[in-house]
Amino acid sequence: MNLYQAPLRDMRFVLHELLNVEQHYTSIPAFAEVNRELVDSILDVGARFAEQELSPLNRSGDEEGCHYHDGTVTTPKGFKEAYAQYLDLGLGSLSAPQAYGGQGLPPSLDIAVGEMNGTANWSWGMYPGLSRGAIETIKAHGTDAQKNTYLSKMTNGIWTGTMCLTESHAGSDLGLIRTKAIEQDDGSYALHGTKVFISAGEHDMADNIVHIVLARLPDAPKGTKGISLFIVPKYLPDAGGEVGPRNGVHCGGIEHKMGIKASATCTINFDGATGFLIGEPNKGLQCMFTFMNAARVGTAVQGVCAAEGAFQGALRYAKDRVAMRSLNGPSHPELEADPIIVHPAVRTMLLTQKTFAEGGRALVYWLATQIDLAAHASTPEARQQADDLMSILTPIAKAFLTEMGSEAAKHGVQVYGGHGFIREWGMEQIVRDTRIACLYEGTTEIQALDLLGRKVLQTQGELLKKFTRIIHKFCEAHAAQAGMDEFVAPLQSLNKTWSDLTMDIGMKALMNRDEVGGSAVDYLYFSGYVTLAYIWAWMAETASRRLSENPEQADFYHAKVQTAQFYYRKLLPRAQAHLACIQGGLVVVQQMPVAAFAF
Amino acid sequence: MNLYQAPLRDMRFVLHELLNVEQHYTSIPAFAEVNRELVDSILDVGARFAEQELSPLNRSGDEEGCHYHDGTVTTPKGFKEAYAQYLDLGLGSLSAPQAYGGQGLPPSLDIAVGEMNGTANWSWGMYPGLSRGAIETIKAHGTDAQKNTYLSKMTNGIWTGTMCLTESHAGSDLGLIRTKAIEQDDGSYALHGTKVFISAGEHDMADNIVHIVLARLPDAPKGTKGISLFIVPKYLPDAGGEVGPRNGVHCGGIEHKMGIKASATCTINFDGATGFLIGEPNKGLQCMFTFMNAARVGTAVQGVCAAEGAFQGALRYAKDRVAMRSLNGPSHPELEADPIIVHPAVRTMLLTQKTFAEGGRALVYWLATQIDLAAHASTPEARQQADDLMSILTPIAKAFLTEMGSEAAKHGVQVYGGHGFIREWGMEQIVRDTRIACLYEGTTEIQALDLLGRKVLQTQGELLKKFTRIIHKFCEAHAAQAGMDEFVAPLQSLNKTWSDLTMDIGMKALMNRDEVGGSAVDYLYFSGYVTLAYIWAWMAETASRRLSENPEQADFYHAKVQTAQFYYRKLLPRAQAHLACIQGGLVVVQQMPVAAFAF
Repeated sequence: MNLYQAPLRDMRFVLHELLNVEQHYTSIPAFAEVNRELVDSILDVGARFAEQELSPLNRSGDEEGCHYHDGTVTTPKGFKEAYAQYLDLGLGSLSAPQAYGGQGLPPSLDIAVGEMNGTANWSWGMYPGLSRGAIETIKAHGTDAQKNTYLSKMTNGIWTGTMCLTESHAGSDLGLIRTKAIEQDDGSYALHGTKVFISAGEHDMADNIVHIVLARLPDAPKGTKGISLFIVPKYLPDAGGEVGPRNGVHCGGIEHKMGIKASATCTINFDGATGFLIGEPNKGLQCMFTFMNAARVGTAVQGVCAAEGAFQGALRYAKDRVAMRSLNGPSHPELEADPIIVHPAVRTMLLTQKTFAEGGRALVYWLATQIDLAAHASTPEARQQADDLMSILTPIAKAFLTEMGSEAAKHGVQVYGGHGFIREWGMEQIVRDTRIACLYEGTTEIQALDLLGRKVLQTQGELLKKFTRIIHKFCEAHAAQAGMDEFVAPLQSLNKTWSDLTMDIGMKALMNRDEVGGSAVDYLYFSGYVTLAYIWAWMAETASRRLSENPEQADFYHAKVQTAQFYYRKLLPRAQAHLACIQGGLVVVQQMPVAAFAF
Repeated sequence: MNLYQAPLRDMRFVLHELLNVEQHYTSIPAFAEVNRELVDSILDVGARFAEQELSPLNRSGDEEGCHYHDGTVTTPKGFKEAYAQYLDLGLGSLSAPQAYGGQGLPPSLDIAVGEMNGTANWSWGMYPGLSRGAIETIKAHGTDAQKNTYLSKMTNGIWTGTMCLTESHAGSDLGLIRTKAIEQDDGSYALHGTKVFISAGEHDMADNIVHIVLARLPDAPKGTKGISLFIVPKYLPDAGGEVGPRNGVHCGGIEHKMGIKASATCTINFDGATGFLIGEPNKGLQCMFTFMNAARVGTAVQGVCAAEGAFQGALRYAKDRVAMRSLNGPSHPELEADPIIVHPAVRTMLLTQKTFAEGGRALVYWLATQIDLAAHASTPEARQQADDLMSILTPIAKAFLTEMGSEAAKHGVQVYGGHGFIREWGMEQIVRDTRIACLYEGTTEIQALDLLGRKVLQTQGELLKKFTRIIHKFCEAHAAQAGMDEFVAPLQSLNKTWSDLTMDIGMKALMNRDEVGGSAVDYLYFSGYVTLAYIWAWMAETASRRLSENPEQADFYHAKVQTAQFYYRKLLPRAQAHLACIQGGLVVVQQMPVAAFAF
């Protein structure tokens, strides 16, 4: 079994050396007292919990899965106890407001803890992870009474939450949902309908489960403009705010899935369940966006989890397993063959995983600092700036990092050869678990449309410019710096190509809107490779600078620069292929009649 | 559940219109009487069997898996009965020699039947599939007595066979195997050791199982030059050739795997088991190559199976499922949303699958005709020519088509969105089943070394030239033909690049042999994309020509040309990225010290 080791050295590099979070936090009044020591101690507590409590339950949870019996769901052995410990350690309430019993720490710290939980045990991480979305929604859109009723219990984790969006016939297209909400005399609503794919929709870890549900009022307009949001608790709170009568909301079954088997994916039936409107009628989808951005960043983190987990497993095996001799002659003549890490094909797979894990980590942690700023920066301008950057980076991070997580997981199996296909080693589990990340919270294709359509073209390129300008400034600042040209020159050129490409697609889309759909996925990959190129150039520059300040850690900084070099020479060329595919045009995608796809 | 439909129209296009197999067969004396009618009737029988018997057992077999109890293995419900029917229909003995009860038909027909079996039910297909390798080995290297004892029973399928190569510590590097064979007074050998990952190593379908085992004699040289080959039957044949006493070979357990769960992957213990030497002592590995080439082509077919199965499932769903409107306005205003096949991202995934399924099919069927010729052509020159072409095409087809099968399977899940992750739909099963194909019979990385190292560089490019010359001649012949320029121009150019690239790597490898390992995988993908470009240009040319001869099937021929266009514009650009990755150099792969991969 491959046990998880939190990559604390790399996490601290990103937080302290690259992002300088101490300075970032002190610039935000709400977090002025968060210093490096506090950050490191939280990382340590999180690491111990993930390594010692969650990681040992990862394989067993996958084998056992969740149990459904007559409306109740039992999580695998040990999950409930781990959850209780997680609450005891205070890891669940780091960023929750102090008013509701939280610790009032920056959201960015949740991301680091979430990464460790998710790598150690993806399925387990879904339970607290989903709760967060419900909390954020109530915090942002609930009435004071609603906040008072739900937030303390949920912040403490005694109650958990879900987001009930999808119906069997309506996933990407939420405009099609049919769940109905009918107003009652007491101002509450009676909900009727069935939701599917509800993560943590039913389980045995908490006293109550608070569902946030998308539904339609009887007179609602068709489509996405007729969706309202409701709080539907499993048990209705009594007058004292404690668990009261059972509500008409029941789990009808759990899905049998490819992966994340220890995460209960529930069908939830609403049979006249009592719900409470949250936010304005018919404005439910806008309210959802608050939550959806955070959930998408959380999913981007899961891409990093897959890459990190697969990298750790593959690296361990590649050092141990011996097979064949280096083509240049024995590297370990004392062994009967060389460890496979000497073979270039194996090194290439490992370095690819490393590049995605470390590059992805830096990207999502950076994004997390923008979440801090968007919510808490001292000026509206600074909040808006962070929000803009988040808007453009979120679909890129969500789709690109989850796809790269899948690729890294694939390499993890491949490094193990035939053993990678055997469940016991845990490498194939990562492939199965991470496959969901390219599907939920908006598929890769939906993220691509969000990026190119909504974020880039609908703002006439303004949002994109905010990011390309950052890249441009970085290139200007470091163009003449020793050792930086191998990064700055290609980055500068790709950054320019990105703008030109965008303009070109925008012009074509004026004539034919399908050009957007036809280019979006390749555009997303292109954007992802350029974004990660920026991150790697930034890390290489930081590592080079730190090398002189901190020479006793030279090995670490050299490796960082070498990983950047690998990225630029071996992965970045893929950006050109995506560009060429876009240039391949729309005609070959659209010309075939539906009837001619198969005979 | 997604049931399989044999793509008979496309199979006939490849066999009759592209490859003209009737003419091909009549040119080979042994097959002179095989005509189109016979081929089509075998396809029909195979299709009915795959669709009606195997496909319905595919999901249930995955859910149930194999059962192991105290040395015995029980296959899932229905598997045994399907096997009996398969034998009754004569599908298992098509290409076996008539002398041993076979039908003496061309091996290429096995490939078409194997494709249908494998798409309908990959796991089931493993049982007869593995037997074939053992039969071929005994046929090629056994004594007359051995042939007489084993071949009739195995051809009839009453006995099945296995290939016992891998040991837990030795997979890609067979030089490390430790299983021992000690000569006994009666000329037989006593085998001691444990083999793992033995497909069909134990099951309940046949009266006897004949293991072909790699082992070492006591005085054998180290490494691959000290390996001998043995026949080790589960039951020793008695004097009459029937099942006699139980031999000391036992199944110690079956693996719990990511996929192909209904295929028994066994640990086989040899505890002084009686074995019979086959071929010369210490020459076992050479004998294995006979079988390995065939097994690799069989695995290449499985790449086609994955692509075809995923394509069929995705196409069905993409026509049915409605979500969102076409960006250019409703295509189906009568529905509440448009079928997702209108969206360019979905069409792109479907066309990618279609391209790999149909292109892969044409490649492996073409390769299969070379197998016919290599074994049965009337002149030694013709046999050698076919063998050379097989040598160069086999690693490309095995590695490239299985990787593309995995990609197609991924798209299959993605088209289904969240439903793709649910077991019931069967799309995730294809992802899990096909993952093994990039691992067994030599991983993608091993195939890449075989291609670039053994086949290309060790022959000073001679083998490669035999293929690039075919491409060159095709381009010359069709350069001026109306409508062909969009294919011929890029193909001609890539063909030249292929030669230049090979020369370049060859020169660098003279200085540093690791250059071979550093380039091999990208070289393999590059070669794969060029090979498939040739196949698609050839199919486009054939379809254009047939269009005028057979205008009532214009829709089919138009679609074929449109699919070729899609390949050239949307997939072939990837070849350039692989070229650029090779040009990225070896330094970034090799420079990082092992200790610096993680801190």
